[in-house]
Amino acid sequence: MAKTTVDISMSLDGFIAGPNQTVEEPLGRGGLELHQWIFGLKSWREQHGEQGGEENADSELVREAVAASGAVVMGRRMFSGGQGPWEDDPVANGWWGDNPPFGVPVFVLTHHAREPLELGDTTFTFLTDGVVAAHEQARAAAGERNVSVAGGAHVVQQFLAAGLLDEIQIHLVPVLLGDGVRLFGAAGEQPALELVRVVDSPTVTHLRYRVPRAS
Amino acid sequence: MAKTTVDISMSLDGFIAGPNQTVEEPLGRGGLELHQWIFGLKSWREQHGEQGGEENADSELVREAVAASGAVVMGRRMFSGGQGPWEDDPVANGWWGDNPPFGVPVFVLTHHAREPLELGDTTFTFLTDGVVAAHEQARAAAGERNVSVAGGAHVVQQFLAAGLLDEIQIHLVPVLLGDGVRLFGAAGEQPALELVRVVDSPTVTHLRYRVPRAS
Repeated sequence: MAKTTVDISMSLDGFIAGPNQTVEEPLGRGGLELHQWIFGLKSWREQHGEQGGEENADSELVREAVAASGAVVMGRRMFSGGQGPWEDDPVANGWWGDNPPFGVPVFVLTHHAREPLELGDTTFTFLTDGVVAAHEQARAAAGERNVSVAGGAHVVQQFLAAGLLDEIQIHLVPVLLGDGVRLFGAAGEQPALELVRVVDSPTVTHLRYRVPRAS
Repeated sequence: MAKTTVDISMSLDGFIAGPNQTVEEPLGRGGLELHQWIFGLKSWREQHGEQGGEENADSELVREAVAASGAVVMGRRMFSGGQGPWEDDPVANGWWGDNPPFGVPVFVLTHHAREPLELGDTTFTFLTDGVVAAHEQARAAAGERNVSVAGGAHVVQQFLAAGLLDEIQIHLVPVLLGDGVRLFGAAGEQPALELVRVVDSPTVTHLRYRVPRAS
């Protein structure tokens, strides 16, 4: 059955981006280090239209996540790479270039309504009615595949608080950022997650947790 | 060669204790959940003079850590369980009962000088000259075995900042406390840790990292 999942890189001290996020450095100071493990992988490079790369357990895991995903949900900042809302910059096509790597419908949570945007194989649809409505629409688009909640932290937290997540897979990177954007924030009391799978490789540990659903 | 190590339970969102620590609830709200994985283990029960318990990978790992440790360093709050300094309560023998489970010399970092305290097999020595001096004294006491930095977070952070740690083993527990005492705090920029070993079991993931030492 289709699930709603999160796949996200987190520092050992709990951050998904460093401090001082800017348009030039949207992941904040040190934040890029959280993603170094993925850039050289064959599966990631394929998804981004590039040749070569390493084929290993990490690569397989990324391929699995991409194949499972039928729709993506993200926040406005993640779409725009930290640029202001499009009212201020009407030509902004976001941060993802002319051929975004998704290839499935992407739903952007925002307070600023906008017409859908088609770039390469990806259509961005902008939704202003909150996470529950966005989740419904993404599920319909994903069909039998999963809805991937891509981030940022605030979007993940909203999905978690609304009881909409089935699984969270954390790519735990052994760096300490000290400050920045915490994945979980003060999410309030949550039932304990259940560890489903651990895949460890030298530079990253992939921890997949099931989120207990209120029945 | 003897190492200086940390073994500590941490929530998935980075806390080693919950919010609202009190004398009655020294681990704060929800903090006890971080330690549930250990209480039923045979090795832990042995260390605490109790019969029975489960023998499994977790138990073996705890036994290994206990056997490797030749001296323990902890902060004053960890000694006293959150009770005020002994000036306020001169009879306070700390939080660990008449027969503390250490069986090796314990060094307590404090600003309040005090004579050594012998309880059962454990002698607590109170040190007021900071982490570097405490580390030297603990190393001398540990001989060929390791110095275990037991906590709290502030003590771990001081050891890390001073470049005194060789390894950090985190027992990552899939609970979200939302608030409380963060293990790493704003430790400032640190070189990336190196994953040495992962042991996963259903309720906890043991992640051992090597801390690169400035040479």
